[in-house]
Amino acid sequence: MCNNHTNITMTRALSVPSTKAPFEKTTIERRELRPDDVLIDIKYSGICHSDIHNAFNEWGGGTFPMVPGHEIAGILSAVGSEVTKFTVGDRVGVGCFVDSCGECEYCLNGEEQFCTKGVISTYNDVDYDGNPTYGGYSQKIVVKENFVVRIPDALNLDVAAPLLCAGITTFSPLKHWNVGPGKKVAIVGMGGLGHVAIQFAHAMGAEVTVLSRSHNKKDEALSFGADQYYATSEPATFTQLASRFDVILNTVSANLDVDAYLSLLRIDGTLVNVGAPAEPDQYNVFSLLRGRRSIAGSLVGGIRETQDMLDFAAEHKIAPMIEVIRAEKVDEAYQRVLRSDVRYRFVIDIATL
Amino acid sequence: MCNNHTNITMTRALSVPSTKAPFEKTTIERRELRPDDVLIDIKYSGICHSDIHNAFNEWGGGTFPMVPGHEIAGILSAVGSEVTKFTVGDRVGVGCFVDSCGECEYCLNGEEQFCTKGVISTYNDVDYDGNPTYGGYSQKIVVKENFVVRIPDALNLDVAAPLLCAGITTFSPLKHWNVGPGKKVAIVGMGGLGHVAIQFAHAMGAEVTVLSRSHNKKDEALSFGADQYYATSEPATFTQLASRFDVILNTVSANLDVDAYLSLLRIDGTLVNVGAPAEPDQYNVFSLLRGRRSIAGSLVGGIRETQDMLDFAAEHKIAPMIEVIRAEKVDEAYQRVLRSDVRYRFVIDIATL
Repeated sequence: MCNNHTNITMTRALSVPSTKAPFEKTTIERRELRPDDVLIDIKYSGICHSDIHNAFNEWGGGTFPMVPGHEIAGILSAVGSEVTKFTVGDRVGVGCFVDSCGECEYCLNGEEQFCTKGVISTYNDVDYDGNPTYGGYSQKIVVKENFVVRIPDALNLDVAAPLLCAGITTFSPLKHWNVGPGKKVAIVGMGGLGHVAIQFAHAMGAEVTVLSRSHNKKDEALSFGADQYYATSEPATFTQLASRFDVILNTVSANLDVDAYLSLLRIDGTLVNVGAPAEPDQYNVFSLLRGRRSIAGSLVGGIRETQDMLDFAAEHKIAPMIEVIRAEKVDEAYQRVLRSDVRYRFVIDIATL
Repeated sequence: MCNNHTNITMTRALSVPSTKAPFEKTTIERRELRPDDVLIDIKYSGICHSDIHNAFNEWGGGTFPMVPGHEIAGILSAVGSEVTKFTVGDRVGVGCFVDSCGECEYCLNGEEQFCTKGVISTYNDVDYDGNPTYGGYSQKIVVKENFVVRIPDALNLDVAAPLLCAGITTFSPLKHWNVGPGKKVAIVGMGGLGHVAIQFAHAMGAEVTVLSRSHNKKDEALSFGADQYYATSEPATFTQLASRFDVILNTVSANLDVDAYLSLLRIDGTLVNVGAPAEPDQYNVFSLLRGRRSIAGSLVGGIRETQDMLDFAAEHKIAPMIEVIRAEKVDEAYQRVLRSDVRYRFVIDIATL
């Protein structure tokens, strides 16, 4: 392995100068390659709803200027002197985080998202050296090789991008809560996360029911592999489906009638949240007692599991349905995400940046 | 086996004539023994906080007159013609329910509390024949043998009584969530349930921490087997114990600061509720996401597990700390339970009825 990149890399990026301000094209620095770093030419970067929460500083802790983006797909263009896993030309991806301590029990167990020292987010964070992290709405990124995954040849780079967050965020809890043959799973919400979750749960062999507000997305849900589709705007849905599911995966980040959803669980069933409303949810404890039910949450997944997810997606021909946009359309895309006017994930064509 | 009891049995009982009214001594009927029934001379009947919720109709659905009591210990005095498990003179107990369908997947799996037809509660319920059920604050009870457990010789009947609810309610979730060697468990609240939970968790080999409002009960907690004791009235408790526990068993039926308790859980930890406040609890979904944590509930336990619990208690010399009272003191005892003025469980001496 050689290292011809001993200098800082300057790269174009889409930056939010301050809370809720429109995006600006700008130039940012990427660090000099360390021995275990790789340089990636980003080809596509997905737009995640959490990008909007961060750019609008709705979760607090926003640092500006901010370059969002943690659904990154590209081609490896340089490697550090000690890189062993990748070579120039590899098709690679980067997800929600770019470093962790590597030594705690969770890192050692491949669940870096729970690193006790604190995982370093791909953007809007400060790395262990004290430098701000900038995400994937940019032409190049430097990442430690251990936080880079390989994109299988069967997956196009544009559809691979959203899998790096929307994919792993749904794949990981489905695996963790043992979704598979003989299990009944409900997917709540059919947006960027939900439409991928349907495909994973179906490929895992479960019976999949989609719970969406209206009947609008029924045909597409069935095409993604859903066995059944119910509109939650119809009260009868909650009586018809009482005590039905082993797992309910809630991909909606608005507040839910938690008790109503808990009533749809079988004994020992779990309502797993992967979306996070800003306001608290509430529940009646009896809803849990009566069926030894649980409310849980899941946060993305580790690097090893992210690779497993990509391989699984390639094997089962799972792909997000995407709308590729030009860089200058990101502000408009954010507004459309907020109106749920996207089927089902925006991906920025970084060549237009 | 013989059946000399072909007639209805009349028995003395303590009855609540209407919501919140004082107890009255009265006489009630117990049904003629069916072939699979046994007649029990009740010796002791525990007072559970849920008896108060029901007698005060705080959970709704109260039917009066009501004879509470689902912590029943006594001596078997007659058996139906087809009874095979018990003989006259056996030391036996009855807990929270007295019948279930026997055919659904949960009954077949020994978890009658989740019977899909609906388990029949020991009191304040209507049995499958349409007759009201009356509980253990009475001298005799007729129960189907499959809902009767054997009280080991090593357990006195008076201390065995509270185990039939307080015992199984805490034993079952500790087993279900795999509390044992190497696990750190917190018991929230040190009342009728909590003081038994400490003993079980300690005997199961876990490291046990008690979280109680004040320091008042520290010495007794340690004597029950707690390794550590913290007062939740001190805010430092929540920083000192951050990310510490695999399982938190909440025995308090008041509303909690759920997020604060979730912050004490390790990754994949579970906050298990066995108490049920009348008002909803609330939580921030981020508290779950950040550590793949869960909020769960557990409801008593099945008959087989109740027998296991009694055998485990006998083997490990686990016993509730009780205050035995005369029948005419029940109203006063209820008021003392509401003031938390009991260490730690009242048991009615049925001989005084």
